[in-house]
Amino acid sequence: MEVEVKADIAKSASRRLAMLDENVKNEALKNMADELIKSKDRILKANEKDILAAENKGVKESLIDRLRLNEKRIEGMANGLLEISALPDPVGAIEEMWKRPNGLQIGKMRCPIGVIGIIYESRPNVTADAAGLCLKSGNAVILKGGSDALNSNIAIVEAIAKAAEVSGVPKGAIQIIENTDREEVNRMMKLNGKIDLLIPRGGANLIQNVIKNSTVPVIETGVGNCHVFVDSYADLEMALKIIVNAKTQRPGVCNAIEKVLIHRDIREKFLPIMVEKLTSLGVEIRGCELTRSICPDVKEANEDDWRTEYLDLILAVKIVEDVDSAIEHINKYSSGHSESIVTENYTNAMKFIKSIDSAAVYVNASTRFTDGGEFGFGAEIGISTQKMHARGPMGLKELTTYKYVILGNGQIRE
Amino acid sequence: MEVEVKADIAKSASRRLAMLDENVKNEALKNMADELIKSKDRILKANEKDILAAENKGVKESLIDRLRLNEKRIEGMANGLLEISALPDPVGAIEEMWKRPNGLQIGKMRCPIGVIGIIYESRPNVTADAAGLCLKSGNAVILKGGSDALNSNIAIVEAIAKAAEVSGVPKGAIQIIENTDREEVNRMMKLNGKIDLLIPRGGANLIQNVIKNSTVPVIETGVGNCHVFVDSYADLEMALKIIVNAKTQRPGVCNAIEKVLIHRDIREKFLPIMVEKLTSLGVEIRGCELTRSICPDVKEANEDDWRTEYLDLILAVKIVEDVDSAIEHINKYSSGHSESIVTENYTNAMKFIKSIDSAAVYVNASTRFTDGGEFGFGAEIGISTQKMHARGPMGLKELTTYKYVILGNGQIRE
Repeated sequence: MEVEVKADIAKSASRRLAMLDENVKNEALKNMADELIKSKDRILKANEKDILAAENKGVKESLIDRLRLNEKRIEGMANGLLEISALPDPVGAIEEMWKRPNGLQIGKMRCPIGVIGIIYESRPNVTADAAGLCLKSGNAVILKGGSDALNSNIAIVEAIAKAAEVSGVPKGAIQIIENTDREEVNRMMKLNGKIDLLIPRGGANLIQNVIKNSTVPVIETGVGNCHVFVDSYADLEMALKIIVNAKTQRPGVCNAIEKVLIHRDIREKFLPIMVEKLTSLGVEIRGCELTRSICPDVKEANEDDWRTEYLDLILAVKIVEDVDSAIEHINKYSSGHSESIVTENYTNAMKFIKSIDSAAVYVNASTRFTDGGEFGFGAEIGISTQKMHARGPMGLKELTTYKYVILGNGQIRE
Repeated sequence: MEVEVKADIAKSASRRLAMLDENVKNEALKNMADELIKSKDRILKANEKDILAAENKGVKESLIDRLRLNEKRIEGMANGLLEISALPDPVGAIEEMWKRPNGLQIGKMRCPIGVIGIIYESRPNVTADAAGLCLKSGNAVILKGGSDALNSNIAIVEAIAKAAEVSGVPKGAIQIIENTDREEVNRMMKLNGKIDLLIPRGGANLIQNVIKNSTVPVIETGVGNCHVFVDSYADLEMALKIIVNAKTQRPGVCNAIEKVLIHRDIREKFLPIMVEKLTSLGVEIRGCELTRSICPDVKEANEDDWRTEYLDLILAVKIVEDVDSAIEHINKYSSGHSESIVTENYTNAMKFIKSIDSAAVYVNASTRFTDGGEFGFGAEIGISTQKMHARGPMGLKELTTYKYVILGNGQIRE
């Protein structure tokens, strides 16, 4: 019953957290950063255990790299906490206030959500990061990391939870589930009323598993099958620059593009230049029939390609009739993350903005900007690709909800 | 496979609905209102069938009354649609826009959620009401009403869906599930990706069933175990007026109060007056031990009472130590709907506002104002008692989400 017990403790901590002074939270975050650095030997020793176990299990090197901590990565976590302490606290702000004819003043006040569960995979840095963001936004957090990283995560939580408590944060504000039994996480996903929100962070399988099994509200994050549409009115030099940036600057992240759609009127002019440039940068191109009739060396794209997030130097290309077919294709195949149109035509730009059903819709810019830092939020807990509560990069404000505050002087309803 | 088929049609309709001109939506709502009036004989005949079947099943009179339509109620539905047509359309509004150092303009644009499922009980007026609100906010709706009202609901949907279509609304924007098999609604609750949001409307059992079984995002509505706390600094005359209003003006609704908490310092002075007044108005009082030591005729309140939404002329009363114990009691037992403090003390008022974890927190006013109309939203689809996405009265804006719109001139990420 570990999750049930910890959720009860978290719920009661969350009541006090909601009232906590901003200075106490900021001081706690600084002390947590200090304590991470002080505890680095202990954390690295715990991490070594995890690495060894993973190696013995034959886990592949790229995953072991995600799991691995070193001094620099621990410093990175500590700096992350310091950055969070410097961000403005959204809790308690009244965003709008209006007066009703009967004299009631009605306002919307930002407040914490309550208890947030984070279900994640092998990167231990998520532990400190998520704990810091939840604390600053006044939420209690229950961390359920991957079993591969359990020793590392426990060591990190020991350090930061202790530092938080010493700084005046209620006990139980930061907790970790240590039981690796799958049943524990299954029950966690049904704790409506005790856990207010679950945020899964990790691969598509993890996220889909949480969405399909949780009755606690979930925020879906991360998967990015992003598109650039090059309109017939595009500045082609700009289009090429944006595509190269969005595909190759960091191909393994969710806001990198996976697809380019090209208006048929410019296919002869633009396609060969783009294919040559991307190929020279090591990108494998897969194309529709029309693409391959112009660039015969391009591999064939199949139906699966249109849905796939490669997270790699692969790009699928399709020639489309016009902006309407581009919009239709994107709304059919996109994961709802980020899409960009390159055009100098005002009407097409507006149509694209209005019709595309994704979290971030760009005109004449790289999709790589869909990021809490780049949007000016300072830090993010993830990028929501669903539509309820929050969409796109989720910063501190998206970790809060609101309540109506109504100030009267004796009003009753007639 | 009725829900799957209808959800696919709704999804495709929702794409076109998102783009629909505001005037087309308003015209459609007016035509829907007209068509309801024109179809009233057909609707009343269908309703008669439902009433007869319910009577034969021995359904109790109060439920049959909810089910019953007459000319006035049909006119009421039609007027509701006209009122919705007169409200401002939230879709397409850019609420904030900011500039980043690289010149990117980032804004948040309101857009429809997509496909909304409404699961409700026997009141057929919900059918027209929910369809109107979803249409105006650009969402496709799938209605799943109670089987008792099926003939009435089908007749209403026939009228309004036809009128909408003739007015230029895409086919499939308003659909009703006709299959009364429980499996149909069970599958509806798992249609992630096809249905974007479920809103259950009805009794606590219906709502809890949807929350516990749905993996589609749900908005929990309705249950109101609301409190008034009378502080030692209260204007006692005002307190009495507010309590009488909040308890007796309409006891069967969710924003009526079910509990009064009284600061111990004023118990001797306030309690007897309040008990006398409420008793004279036909309210049954149940009290804590201290309450009963002052007013011995008051019945005993047990643990269950503190959690119960009576929806009736019953009130439970508790004497508390101070504002902190009032807050603790409310946060423990409340359903998170509406709570009010009566006080002239500024610090206590601010503490109450900041600490109470409910959708609407009042100072010196009746809780009966928690209502879309009273808040100035014009109409509401329900009152959310959960914390994700929307809290409190949900109007047209709460039936939308947002997307980020990013306007650039060739920005790429370095």
